[in-house]
Amino acid sequence: MPMQFDPPSGTRDFLAADVEARERAFGTIRSVFARYGFEPLQTPAFERLDVLLGKYGEEGDKLIFKILRRGEHEASGEADLALRYDLTVPLARVAAAYGSQLPRPYKRYAIGPVWRADRPGRGRYREFIQCDLDTLGSTSTMADAEVICAVHDALAELGVPGFRFLLNSRHVLAGLLEVFGVPADLGPDVLITLDKLDKLAPAEITDELGGRGLDRAKAEELVAAMTAHDAAERIRAALKPSEEGSAGLDEIDAMLSLVPGKVPEYRIGFTPRLVRGLSYYTGPIWEVVARGVPGSIAGGGRYDHLIEQAGGPDVPATGGSLGIERIVLLLPDGGTGRHSRLDVAVTIMGPEYAQRSFALAGVARTAGLRSSVYLGSSGKLGRQLKWASDQGARWALIYGGTEQEAGTVTVRDMDSGEQAAVPVPDLAAHLARLAAGNDH
Amino acid sequence: MPMQFDPPSGTRDFLAADVEARERAFGTIRSVFARYGFEPLQTPAFERLDVLLGKYGEEGDKLIFKILRRGEHEASGEADLALRYDLTVPLARVAAAYGSQLPRPYKRYAIGPVWRADRPGRGRYREFIQCDLDTLGSTSTMADAEVICAVHDALAELGVPGFRFLLNSRHVLAGLLEVFGVPADLGPDVLITLDKLDKLAPAEITDELGGRGLDRAKAEELVAAMTAHDAAERIRAALKPSEEGSAGLDEIDAMLSLVPGKVPEYRIGFTPRLVRGLSYYTGPIWEVVARGVPGSIAGGGRYDHLIEQAGGPDVPATGGSLGIERIVLLLPDGGTGRHSRLDVAVTIMGPEYAQRSFALAGVARTAGLRSSVYLGSSGKLGRQLKWASDQGARWALIYGGTEQEAGTVTVRDMDSGEQAAVPVPDLAAHLARLAAGNDH
Repeated sequence: MPMQFDPPSGTRDFLAADVEARERAFGTIRSVFARYGFEPLQTPAFERLDVLLGKYGEEGDKLIFKILRRGEHEASGEADLALRYDLTVPLARVAAAYGSQLPRPYKRYAIGPVWRADRPGRGRYREFIQCDLDTLGSTSTMADAEVICAVHDALAELGVPGFRFLLNSRHVLAGLLEVFGVPADLGPDVLITLDKLDKLAPAEITDELGGRGLDRAKAEELVAAMTAHDAAERIRAALKPSEEGSAGLDEIDAMLSLVPGKVPEYRIGFTPRLVRGLSYYTGPIWEVVARGVPGSIAGGGRYDHLIEQAGGPDVPATGGSLGIERIVLLLPDGGTGRHSRLDVAVTIMGPEYAQRSFALAGVARTAGLRSSVYLGSSGKLGRQLKWASDQGARWALIYGGTEQEAGTVTVRDMDSGEQAAVPVPDLAAHLARLAAGNDH
Repeated sequence: MPMQFDPPSGTRDFLAADVEARERAFGTIRSVFARYGFEPLQTPAFERLDVLLGKYGEEGDKLIFKILRRGEHEASGEADLALRYDLTVPLARVAAAYGSQLPRPYKRYAIGPVWRADRPGRGRYREFIQCDLDTLGSTSTMADAEVICAVHDALAELGVPGFRFLLNSRHVLAGLLEVFGVPADLGPDVLITLDKLDKLAPAEITDELGGRGLDRAKAEELVAAMTAHDAAERIRAALKPSEEGSAGLDEIDAMLSLVPGKVPEYRIGFTPRLVRGLSYYTGPIWEVVARGVPGSIAGGGRYDHLIEQAGGPDVPATGGSLGIERIVLLLPDGGTGRHSRLDVAVTIMGPEYAQRSFALAGVARTAGLRSSVYLGSSGKLGRQLKWASDQGARWALIYGGTEQEAGTVTVRDMDSGEQAAVPVPDLAAHLARLAAGNDH
């Protein structure tokens, strides 16, 4: 494709097959989230610049697409708006704006594009869909468990193969630092290193912890416990003396007791090494991994102060995010693919048959079939049948001189080439029968 | 709402009831367009600035939201991207980019936001949804008629009350100028004035035509013919001597002969006074008006050179656009409204019942019902039933000490207050029966 017709760097055009696969996936997710009592929210593509700036750290701020002030101020090169960077800051704004109109707790989902001026790369886009669900205003562990069940059901209904929830709690991590004697000032750095336990070898982690100033023996002990085949049990035992660590375990056990009806045991487990990098989590945290996929396909947790930090009211909150761009690629029909554009292609054997042929397409639509007349300039049947075949049509309808005399329409099966002469008044019933019996 | 939490000027937040009403309408439109063999296209929110600039005239260019260049060039205040202004220029780019991959003709629809830095006002937004369908690559009048039928079916399925198609052709208008002896150089101006025939009195139109330099007698004759109660017949007769005018009438008659199966006669008519302001139309033009609504709710026509002017290949094209923001307001459920957040609200009578109650919500979901557990901190039944009622729940499920002993769950009808004790294993069937019998 000539360069100048590319979409802008880091963005994509979606032609029919992709749009349909993606919309089908979004529809499944929406219907699962709705069943859990989450309601949709849509906010504008852009926000006032001051609403966004300072919410994502210095690095994040650099990635915000800024929009030039319009009108007489345009020449100043000043920006006053910016494309949204995520769906959380808009949620915080909405929570502040419509507080009393929103149900309590406010359970909302949002599926929509966000924009980041990241360097585009394999699977990294400047425009991509985020898919978030969050519960604002509840401190109950049931709210956390509900998010996990909803994400589970969405992934299961989408048909994502072999996925599994990793479950942990920030309180468990705090307890760990406590019982393994990590000095308070090293805590955040140690957690950042532990977060790499799924990527680096234990010895590398131990080295990095040492480099960050942690006593070598403590580092080895901590890493040994975290990487043991029975890590979950060893950490459970080690946490007994810590009040915060025990509270974290209680939290996890409460969640594990709530989900089993929905989330089978092999699909969720206490995973002490799960840290999640984001510093704003305050309670349970979780991620979903899938067979053969590096990294996670979903993640979330409790973040009781983030909405306030993001400019909203001070409300407890828990939520999660589906990595929908990655998930779509895992689905059976997620890749670009062929798709049938038409069920029924109607030939036009000459201008004198246009009116009747046009009406026949309408009959097919009334039977629920995708249908179109031939809009090209060729009068040749072969050429028109080639068009029908290119559209993936299952049937062609032919109405010309012979058919007019007989009061029939020729229904051609595009796979077998078999043709039937159907009396015009019977066409609707005939097509309905064909449609019911054929799902290719 | 405190000012600083407003969405940006000219944009809107959509809470649940609005999102649901709008998405329902978009879903109906998508399914009708698909039935006609139109396929979806999604392009990025922004395009390279040079793709958009110069396509909308000087006034239009001023309304384009420009995005600042990122990175080291940011300080320059230069823009390199811009939010899309319509869905036509992106279509032209796609037609140029994917030519050989697209079906011929290429019948596509697009429903998505566009952005214009217009002065916000009543019903005028800076972010709004456009809904376009177009056929590229066919000169056939059937392509024009197909667009009209698809728009008709969409409006009918949406339930838009009392709408009607006004049909005309640019060739008819050219013929009119010819037979009424309008000098060629006055033609465009005269058409601009005639376009106001539905808004101004005949005398005002005559005056304006005179002011534009048209001979007074000719102006009166033209306006008299156009505003007569039998205008269509008078214009038909007047056009006989004009070759182009007669060709335009043939075009209109061909379309009227194609649509009657789908579009009843009282819903479409030849309307000589229809001009449509946009200079790019080259053949049939049409608008849809609705009872009690000023202006039009949809419009379109043939524009055989626009795709090339918009940066695409030189292909004939015809299409239309639904004024979806206006249409949504006409729908029975289009306004902001209450909506039921939940079907089933599950109370939590104490932590010891949480696990079972949580599972009961899952049973209700399996029966296809929107369901949530109570996530607040009150242990009081009255308080929890108040929450259930606020959510619009039809039924509440209560599971406490009494129910545990009896092995039942209490199902409360939230309208009548009636309660039934249902054995736990029978709940799924019980709820399915209730759901089938109750559509409030």
